[in-house]
Amino acid sequence: MSIIDELTEALGAETVLTGAAIGERYRSDESLTGRVLPMAVIRPRTVEEVSTALRICNAHGQPVVPQGGLAGLAGGANASGGDVAISLENLAGIEEIDTAAGTMTVKAGTVLEVAQNAAAEAGMLLAIDLGARGSCQIGGNISTNAGGIRVIRHGVTRDNVLGLEVVLADGTVLSMLNKMTKNNTGYDLRQFFIGAEGTLGIITRAVVKLKPRPPARSTALVALENYDAVVALLGRARRELEALSAFEAMWENFVRFNCEAAGISFFETAYPFLVIVEEDSDGSDAARDRFEAFLGRALEDGLIVDALIAQSEKETQRFWSVREAYMMGQLLPSLINLDVSLPIGSIGDYARACEAALLERFPDAHVSFFGHIGDSNLHVAISVGEASAEELHAVDEIAYDLVKAFGGSISAEHGIGTLKRPYLGCSRSAEELDAMRRIKLALDPKGILNPGKVI
Amino acid sequence: MSIIDELTEALGAETVLTGAAIGERYRSDESLTGRVLPMAVIRPRTVEEVSTALRICNAHGQPVVPQGGLAGLAGGANASGGDVAISLENLAGIEEIDTAAGTMTVKAGTVLEVAQNAAAEAGMLLAIDLGARGSCQIGGNISTNAGGIRVIRHGVTRDNVLGLEVVLADGTVLSMLNKMTKNNTGYDLRQFFIGAEGTLGIITRAVVKLKPRPPARSTALVALENYDAVVALLGRARRELEALSAFEAMWENFVRFNCEAAGISFFETAYPFLVIVEEDSDGSDAARDRFEAFLGRALEDGLIVDALIAQSEKETQRFWSVREAYMMGQLLPSLINLDVSLPIGSIGDYARACEAALLERFPDAHVSFFGHIGDSNLHVAISVGEASAEELHAVDEIAYDLVKAFGGSISAEHGIGTLKRPYLGCSRSAEELDAMRRIKLALDPKGILNPGKVI
Ligand SMILES: Cc1cc2nc3c(=O)[nH]c(=O)nc-3n(C[C@H](O)[C@H](O)[C@H](O)COP(=O)(O)OP(=O)(O)OC[C@H]3O[C@@H](n4cnc5c(N)ncnc54)[C@H](O)[C@@H]3O)c2cc1C
Ligand SMILES: Cc1cc2nc3c(=O)[nH]c(=O)nc-3n(C[C@H](O)[C@H](O)[C@H](O)COP(=O)(O)OP(=O)(O)OC[C@H]3O[C@@H](n4cnc5c(N)ncnc54)[C@H](O)[C@@H]3O)c2cc1C
Repeated sequence: MSIIDELTEALGAETVLTGAAIGERYRSDESLTGRVLPMAVIRPRTVEEVSTALRICNAHGQPVVPQGGLAGLAGGANASGGDVAISLENLAGIEEIDTAAGTMTVKAGTVLEVAQNAAAEAGMLLAIDLGARGSCQIGGNISTNAGGIRVIRHGVTRDNVLGLEVVLADGTVLSMLNKMTKNNTGYDLRQFFIGAEGTLGIITRAVVKLKPRPPARSTALVALENYDAVVALLGRARRELEALSAFEAMWENFVRFNCEAAGISFFETAYPFLVIVEEDSDGSDAARDRFEAFLGRALEDGLIVDALIAQSEKETQRFWSVREAYMMGQLLPSLINLDVSLPIGSIGDYARACEAALLERFPDAHVSFFGHIGDSNLHVAISVGEASAEELHAVDEIAYDLVKAFGGSISAEHGIGTLKRPYLGCSRSAEELDAMRRIKLALDPKGILNPGKVI
Repeated sequence: MSIIDELTEALGAETVLTGAAIGERYRSDESLTGRVLPMAVIRPRTVEEVSTALRICNAHGQPVVPQGGLAGLAGGANASGGDVAISLENLAGIEEIDTAAGTMTVKAGTVLEVAQNAAAEAGMLLAIDLGARGSCQIGGNISTNAGGIRVIRHGVTRDNVLGLEVVLADGTVLSMLNKMTKNNTGYDLRQFFIGAEGTLGIITRAVVKLKPRPPARSTALVALENYDAVVALLGRARRELEALSAFEAMWENFVRFNCEAAGISFFETAYPFLVIVEEDSDGSDAARDRFEAFLGRALEDGLIVDALIAQSEKETQRFWSVREAYMMGQLLPSLINLDVSLPIGSIGDYARACEAALLERFPDAHVSFFGHIGDSNLHVAISVGEASAEELHAVDEIAYDLVKAFGGSISAEHGIGTLKRPYLGCSRSAEELDAMRRIKLALDPKGILNPGKVI
């Protein structure tokens, strides 16, 4: 019996898609680098079905690629020829919201925004948040240890996960649906699967933290003359704004491009840096006054040179629209969006060096910078027009060599997937790669889970 | 050549203690359950020496027990006969404080309080804090993933660790001295060693997070009528006190015992529950007013029945002195201090059930409760007087069976060590234990690191 027949017999034809039943959307994540469709797409509805599917695939040594919302930017969910995809899309739904404990128990295939809305209805905040909220899934967020715009206050996804249910390559179910902050009983196995990009197990359920929902937010768009001032302002904001919830820096090039594209403008002159500063607030006048006083002092001390405070939800959204910058992909031919981590003090110098090196090789390139610098995370938007594979490779090499020189890491948020695998050695030593391989071999001895990804 | 000769030749006689040179203090951690001295105590001064020692021990299949400050309460650092101890005490010192990045790079053998003071001198806060601060080491805190009194605001030790340097059993050095919040490049190997109680590698250096130091704190001692009110107050405090930094609940029995022992009293009557509520503050009158208003509302709404606000540092310390409760160990013959995790909503019922079950079996026992309930962490202080091994076993069994029945975990903070190993199955499934064994085998194939501990 072929493996497809075996899977179909065990799970039913409606759960195992093959041939023409496999839609185009299973081809690639948002990196748009996926080339082939999977041999079959399995869409389990229960953890038992995930277990059955993996048990059968493992017995056959059949490679499996887990697929979440396919919003990834690293090619991690793309199939190679002959892969079976396990899509989590039908394993969705919220199982419990416990407002006393501050927890939500949720199936892995639940779309992030659905979970966020359910938390909001219960008067709580699910603090994991990123631009792809409408399509990415909780399981994908956990598997990539996603970051986003609230990390400065609420940490990365890892910091928001309390419990996990995971199915290992051989079908073994690890049920670690812990609702407690502290549980020092043996190795914290949950941690192994967070950020493992589907190479160590398939996540089927999670317990995530919920926090009290802030009644309001204060938002400012602030102009600064240089990168040192940005770092100084961040330090002050951290000290003086108890509930600092976002600090997003944008370099001049980035602001100009996005403002022109969107037909908006904020200040009379162009400034080297704009920063969005946001604080959670109780909505009181006193809170607003404190926020304004903070900006007032920064202005007086010459740390910032101009500032706008949003007076309405609409204005807040207008500030954010520059930052969200999705139009870049449509306007810049073959946009490359790099996502690197650097010691915060070096980000300014890195940006200057990276821009200079790229423009030397590609004089007409677009190069601009923005990022969650409070999390030492910089995004680089690059376009060198219609480029050969060799030229694209040169871009990566220029940018990543400098990351290494500045003591940074080649992936802050987006993970390694397939796209960055050739460069993993820039951030990890041979000893570390060897230790990773040993872990992989221990948990997935036949190497069926997402082979060719990460390591 | 004997292994001791080989170690002495490679490391020098002053680094390898044997025979009478081995002091009494290497016998046991604070659980006072250690019975034998190690065969030798190695005190390396550099990571290279740690690597050399492990390489030699691994080649001989020689069991090794890592020793930090020996403040542990689970017997994790105690030697078995024939073990070589590697003490980190001489691998101490702060290497770098980076106030812009908010990081401290520190050698693993540094005493926690020394690191805290260095941070304070730089105007920063190292948020890891526990009663044993004067003796425990950063490496021990990380190896036990220590909790403490600031978890509600700053998380457990895991949340405060950015980078680690670790030596594997075979002497391989993994240098992951990352200073960045986000680094999604392959498996996050650091996580494997945090809380592993020295069974997967020896931690030699760490990068820990530093936060801005709060200029002041507001502290209240609050009285409540029942456990539900305690949970409701916690929910409110979380919503309304932006910078809530401690929430420590004490049951009536616990308060009575400690107040009598210390000869202090706070309220006219005895209340079922006292809670210490603390908020970081900027020291302004406005902050103090907000804190008082919060308590005023809780009083008006009948949530709390009495409250004291500390008017001086001395009064703050007086509040905390009830909680710290170190005298218990001196006053109660053979104190047993259990440390369990439970869903927060169940802690009140668990305490009632646990007390009843223990008193049924041991009518004269002391049983009292206190804990970081915001972290779903309850401590149980038990004394059944001079007890046989069988009776002590009965105490554990009664308390831990109920933990299992209430969906909790048998170790919130203190780890498994040797003391709780027989009960690990209460909190972990056979599948989880098997996965842990696979990880252990992958990283320490000869099983030399802290054998008999954890798994
Ligand atoms: C507009 C936009 C904005 C973005 N902003 C951010 C941002 O701010 N920060 C950030 O970190 N990322 C960001 N991303 C990247 C991406 O959205 C995240 O990585 C997201 O977490 C991916 O979730 P997904 O469900 O779409 O996963 P997929 O893309 O489907 O998969 C990602 C990886 O996880 C694996 N996987 C998925 N589900 C499971 C599972 N249940 N069990 C095991 N493995 C699984 C896959 O095999 C793959 O390796 C953004 C993407 C877009 C398109
Ligand atoms: C008064 C008092 C109060 C306490 N309060 C708390 C509390 O609030 N919260 C809490 O969580 N704990 C508490 N504890 C327990 C204890 O202090 C912590 O577990 C502490 O982190 C132990 O650190 P240590 O350096 O003393 O480690 P040790 O006791 O020496 O060792 C602990 C474990 O870690 C291993 N280890 C030590 N150093 C290393 C290293 N460098 N590399 C690898 N493995 C290593 C040892 O082998 C052992 O398994 C308290 C203890 C006391 C005595």
